[in-house]
Amino acid sequence: MNAQADRLPLNTIDPLACRFAQVRAHSLELAAPLSEEDCCAQSMPDASPIKWHLAHTTWFFETFLLERRERNFKPFHSAFRVLFNSYYNGVGDKHARPKRGLLTRPALKEVIAYRRNVDARMQALLASHAGTDAYAELAQLVELGLQHEQQHQELMLTDVLHLFSCNPLFPAYANGKPAAHAPVEPLQWLKFDAGIVEIGHEGDGFCFDNELPCHRQFVERFQLGLRLVTNGEYLAFIEAGGYRDPAMWLSEGWDWVNREGLACPIYWQKDEGGWKTFGLHGLQTLDPHAPAVHISYFEADAYARWAGARLPTEAEWEHAARSSKGLKQLFGVCWQWTSSSYAAYPGFKTADGALGEYNGKFMSNQYVLRGSSSATPEGHARISYRNFFPATARWQVMGIRLAK
Amino acid sequence: MNAQADRLPLNTIDPLACRFAQVRAHSLELAAPLSEEDCCAQSMPDASPIKWHLAHTTWFFETFLLERRERNFKPFHSAFRVLFNSYYNGVGDKHARPKRGLLTRPALKEVIAYRRNVDARMQALLASHAGTDAYAELAQLVELGLQHEQQHQELMLTDVLHLFSCNPLFPAYANGKPAAHAPVEPLQWLKFDAGIVEIGHEGDGFCFDNELPCHRQFVERFQLGLRLVTNGEYLAFIEAGGYRDPAMWLSEGWDWVNREGLACPIYWQKDEGGWKTFGLHGLQTLDPHAPAVHISYFEADAYARWAGARLPTEAEWEHAARSSKGLKQLFGVCWQWTSSSYAAYPGFKTADGALGEYNGKFMSNQYVLRGSSSATPEGHARISYRNFFPATARWQVMGIRLAK
Amino acid sequence: MNAQADRLPLNTIDPLACRFAQVRAHSLELAAPLSEEDCCAQSMPDASPIKWHLAHTTWFFETFLLERRERNFKPFHSAFRVLFNSYYNGVGDKHARPKRGLLTRPALKEVIAYRRNVDARMQALLASHAGTDAYAELAQLVELGLQHEQQHQELMLTDVLHLFSCNPLFPAYANGKPAAHAPVEPLQWLKFDAGIVEIGHEGDGFCFDNELPCHRQFVERFQLGLRLVTNGEYLAFIEAGGYRDPAMWLSEGWDWVNREGLACPIYWQKDEGGWKTFGLHGLQTLDPHAPAVHISYFEADAYARWAGARLPTEAEWEHAARSSKGLKQLFGVCWQWTSSSYAAYPGFKTADGALGEYNGKFMSNQYVLRGSSSATPEGHARISYRNFFPATARWQVMGIRLAK
Amino acid sequence: MNAQADRLPLNTIDPLACRFAQVRAHSLELAAPLSEEDCCAQSMPDASPIKWHLAHTTWFFETFLLERRERNFKPFHSAFRVLFNSYYNGVGDKHARPKRGLLTRPALKEVIAYRRNVDARMQALLASHAGTDAYAELAQLVELGLQHEQQHQELMLTDVLHLFSCNPLFPAYANGKPAAHAPVEPLQWLKFDAGIVEIGHEGDGFCFDNELPCHRQFVERFQLGLRLVTNGEYLAFIEAGGYRDPAMWLSEGWDWVNREGLACPIYWQKDEGGWKTFGLHGLQTLDPHAPAVHISYFEADAYARWAGARLPTEAEWEHAARSSKGLKQLFGVCWQWTSSSYAAYPGFKTADGALGEYNGKFMSNQYVLRGSSSATPEGHARISYRNFFPATARWQVMGIRLAK
Repeated sequence: MNAQADRLPLNTIDPLACRFAQVRAHSLELAAPLSEEDCCAQSMPDASPIKWHLAHTTWFFETFLLERRERNFKPFHSAFRVLFNSYYNGVGDKHARPKRGLLTRPALKEVIAYRRNVDARMQALLASHAGTDAYAELAQLVELGLQHEQQHQELMLTDVLHLFSCNPLFPAYANGKPAAHAPVEPLQWLKFDAGIVEIGHEGDGFCFDNELPCHRQFVERFQLGLRLVTNGEYLAFIEAGGYRDPAMWLSEGWDWVNREGLACPIYWQKDEGGWKTFGLHGLQTLDPHAPAVHISYFEADAYARWAGARLPTEAEWEHAARSSKGLKQLFGVCWQWTSSSYAAYPGFKTADGALGEYNGKFMSNQYVLRGSSSATPEGHARISYRNFFPATARWQVMGIRLAK
Repeated sequence: MNAQADRLPLNTIDPLACRFAQVRAHSLELAAPLSEEDCCAQSMPDASPIKWHLAHTTWFFETFLLERRERNFKPFHSAFRVLFNSYYNGVGDKHARPKRGLLTRPALKEVIAYRRNVDARMQALLASHAGTDAYAELAQLVELGLQHEQQHQELMLTDVLHLFSCNPLFPAYANGKPAAHAPVEPLQWLKFDAGIVEIGHEGDGFCFDNELPCHRQFVERFQLGLRLVTNGEYLAFIEAGGYRDPAMWLSEGWDWVNREGLACPIYWQKDEGGWKTFGLHGLQTLDPHAPAVHISYFEADAYARWAGARLPTEAEWEHAARSSKGLKQLFGVCWQWTSSSYAAYPGFKTADGALGEYNGKFMSNQYVLRGSSSATPEGHARISYRNFFPATARWQVMGIRLAK
Repeated sequence: MNAQADRLPLNTIDPLACRFAQVRAHSLELAAPLSEEDCCAQSMPDASPIKWHLAHTTWFFETFLLERRERNFKPFHSAFRVLFNSYYNGVGDKHARPKRGLLTRPALKEVIAYRRNVDARMQALLASHAGTDAYAELAQLVELGLQHEQQHQELMLTDVLHLFSCNPLFPAYANGKPAAHAPVEPLQWLKFDAGIVEIGHEGDGFCFDNELPCHRQFVERFQLGLRLVTNGEYLAFIEAGGYRDPAMWLSEGWDWVNREGLACPIYWQKDEGGWKTFGLHGLQTLDPHAPAVHISYFEADAYARWAGARLPTEAEWEHAARSSKGLKQLFGVCWQWTSSSYAAYPGFKTADGALGEYNGKFMSNQYVLRGSSSATPEGHARISYRNFFPATARWQVMGIRLAK
Repeated sequence: MNAQADRLPLNTIDPLACRFAQVRAHSLELAAPLSEEDCCAQSMPDASPIKWHLAHTTWFFETFLLERRERNFKPFHSAFRVLFNSYYNGVGDKHARPKRGLLTRPALKEVIAYRRNVDARMQALLASHAGTDAYAELAQLVELGLQHEQQHQELMLTDVLHLFSCNPLFPAYANGKPAAHAPVEPLQWLKFDAGIVEIGHEGDGFCFDNELPCHRQFVERFQLGLRLVTNGEYLAFIEAGGYRDPAMWLSEGWDWVNREGLACPIYWQKDEGGWKTFGLHGLQTLDPHAPAVHISYFEADAYARWAGARLPTEAEWEHAARSSKGLKQLFGVCWQWTSSSYAAYPGFKTADGALGEYNGKFMSNQYVLRGSSSATPEGHARISYRNFFPATARWQVMGIRLAK
């Protein structure tokens, strides 16, 4: 795929239209190194095909913006409303999630045509609203659609990594080698006093509904690790028998380790040449100084227990991140597990209609991660951002910051 | 079974020895209406046979008290250490939980002999420590064992109820009819101000490790329902199509409802004569004024959403319970779901050794319930008590108190 | 249980009434060594509780004889029609098979009362028909009911053995030790010529519908092992790596061995003292000269392949058994797997109504076994008898006779 | 894909080399209407991606011919030996069957290059053996490889049909409409006498090992339907409640119907416009005169019972097919279920080595189908040909010929 060819002409000076074009183009840039076959396969129910991500993010704009605001709306394809609905019951039927990889039709080319069609209609919609009273509300929805697309951009990378990890050829998504990490210092702890802290998003910038409202929490005094846990430190846990000692694990975690027969993180493997990790650059010798990533909550919690520490709560993480104490690796390296179950903030409200399903209905049996990762698109992260996954999820770029 | 015959002679004035004899005798009293067959069967992996409860609570004293403190300790039966271990990895192997119902041997009579044997040895142990420096520590462990046994006394009732619910004959555990409830008033709301509150157990009395330490939390202002939700109110939710509307449910809850084909609570059924509920008194016409019980977290959460309210956090519940605002039905009716995921309090510490597995290792993917139920033994409840179950659990006596 | 007390007074000289009383009494005799708890538990969906066997065999007489022939028929208990229906769709609903072990009610005592009640009514029915035209048809159905009960008598023993094998205490059903087997001679082969043979039941005696009609088959020349394969011979297969070599196994069998992690027959175990086998006499040192039993079809087939032989077809077995060539261990030791899939004989007809479900509907994906076993009641075996089980079934007394 | 371009130059007059080129080219012709995405997806574990079929059939020649006979053998790609091994334990490891659809690499283009490479080496091998003593054995193996490829050609069509049936867009593999069938006459029966018949392959032509040895069977007199059962006849079974009446079904079949919630054959659906069937030409109005296809054994057996008939044995089918009685639709329409479990003929021998796994190890819990189907390549069928599938398989072109 020639991603360049997919850039839209930017014949507008509306910054949002500009941003729209840039974010949309980035999705195609991410797919550029992949073949049509790569873009169609689905390696597990939790992951989606690249083609599906490209179509679903387009569906979002067509369904939540064009359908209600475009004059004489006519869908690009009548079947797409169902095919590319992810989880919005309010929109109607959905294609079964585990069967997304069977959609060899529409072809990738048709999905790209769908993107171009919707992009053009969206630009026209924006232009037609310029200067009107309705622009502000429209702009808010467009921004939600772009933030949504950025979330899927991260998933595109993690999903293709999982797909490639299932292939004994271990293909590399990216050329070249990852840069080696310099040796790290022994872990230092930053201290924080007890007190009432403000948690959640404040101000005019974009945020998701689950970051609201800004509210108070009481935090007891605590310490937070200056940096993330490294591969070398995690390897020490493995070599100390961490995966064989039930005393290190939550009960559910121990059951999971045994049921799945786990002895190391998902993308680690050991051969006669030593430990290797699999990533977007393919199989690489384990870098002991790099932060440990693709770690589940259960593994993070077990490591923390073994290390005589614990995971931070999300209030601790957010409070510390707002301080000016020089915490390293908060953003752009890996999402950091907190011990906080994903729940509504006091006073949380969902939007009306199907968009109310965006976040709120997932508030059970998941844990919050904070920060952002190497796969997160530029400009998508925030201190108040709440990512969330089940305790066994490992295919995201997830790591460990210790607290005590 | 003649429960009377199993009372130990109380030839001691040590109040703890007395209490020991009483709590232990109560377990047998609970089994008195049951046959040997009733006591042996296991209706699902989450439930255990009555005989197993009787043996396991005895195993607890033999393993955690007699084994380390009795001179010339010799186990009653060498195989019981494995057979009646519930989940303590620190003690060694365990009989597979879903296969407890296959242990037709040892016979119920042998388990009762096991109880008598351990009871006598425990009384001797207590007597031998009277007045010594070691007594206080011993007493603490004995109390833990008795509290543990009381937890199992509650499970005996809920487990036998589930067993009987699987039998098309719908046997009654207890004779007679449950008392009818008087009509309730429309729900009133009690208001609470925002502020820092103290949560957790304080003082000398017994508590479990998960209730410690007492600590501060900030609570925003909230309102709490004066009483529990009734069967009649819950029926309105059903009749309004609550089990068919995804907008009412958490996403996981909606999947669960559809996977299991649910249309009402576990022990409800409808025939030409109207709605009936199954309980320890057998099948009864649904009492619209009785509190709705055997409700899962997912159902409680869906009901609350439908009712325009929410579930309280455990801090809200505990703070309100400590006030003197006349809240009804806090204890002795049903455990009340909170929206709080079961997690460690700040500064939580587990005991050394296998007893450290008592509570801490279960702190994932469960929700806290507060109060106590009609099945909770007299004197077992506390304001700071934290019960916890997964979001789909329904076989306990669980209900709904609303917040907003 | 006092089995003696359950014998009916034999105040009739009708030989069938006599036989009825004897067969019925034998079921209770088999249950005599067992407790109420033993009789209630169900160790797997394929096995049934002893109490259920006792009730279901009674249900057979009540449903298929009394219901249609007794004046003013009134069921002993209205719920039993559903509770103790095994698989007869023509009779109506059935209690779910895997939940038979949850029927702690009716109590064993009530089931015995049910047996006595039906026994008396059956005797009265027989007496009332004595000398009438309808007697012959009645007698035929009574005989079917008795043969049916004998089949369940065998299952009672194999089901209780499986239940006890799930108990780490390994209880013995029978006292004493099994008699040691004398050393066997090397396997000799009996030769049979090719030709048309008659297969199936002929004559006036009882047989099941699946043994009919007697028909012709062409059998190529073959040889049959004079005796059964012994434990010692089977052990040589194990020690030669039989359970680790896919070349020995059918593809499905190999998948099964790996999925279940099998390394020996179901009731074999090895400890520091060597190989032991579990049986009705409890755990015993493996007797190398005893016939290998509790062997699945997949294991029998793999052993035969390893031994350079094969399993016989059922036509070969039956033809050989009709010869006078001195074949040993045809009856009373173990059922002998044949390579014949369980299918209808040419011209096979099922009975009208629900009794037509007795055999015919199971004619898929099962293999025929011939002979009879140590658990088969006296007088129940026939040369034309066709037993059948799926290829993975192991809990019956099944073994191997080789052919080539 | 331009299939034409993949035809090899036929610069040889060795008829086998010619046939080799033709059969190999046909596989690519079958893939020609498909995109790279279509060729990569796998819709269920039983089906394989088209790309995998193209690679595996090539692997067969490389592994079983080139590896042992080519001088200085070097595999095209070292990983392909594992990636494209189907089920030959004797060859070593295999890529997990249900994960074949995740192999987006090697790309389809690389697989086609693999085919060309192996084709050229095979032609060279054949040429180098021309006129030598070793030619005959080589030719036999080449023929086996071609017959093997033809089997996969049939699977390519049935697997892509299943894949497309999972897509709500219901894509058509082939353009145009299937020809309408003329109305059929009421079913006529052809009569056959009892007697000894010869079954199995005889002569010099190619056959699979499972068709040998030719041997005698005794067949009772029987009648066979002159033609296949039609859609219209099968529809009458549906409309008579066939899928709701347990009396029509084998016990396992009835469980399957209920577990899967079946009410019609796999590719049938009913909408307001009436019944439609899905096939290679896409969704079409049901043609009542066309033979019913994609019918499982359980459905075929149930239909036959409902129609007062039965399925033929394979001996009956083969004997009738050898007669000159004018039986219609024996070949080229659909495979025809027999009631015969797939088993070894008396005297059956497997080849040495991994090729011995070709057929023999699948001889359990499958049923034999006879004839050939519309998807069978020209020239692949034989009267003695034994196809076999489990009783629930439906995605092949399978239908019903009645016997009685």
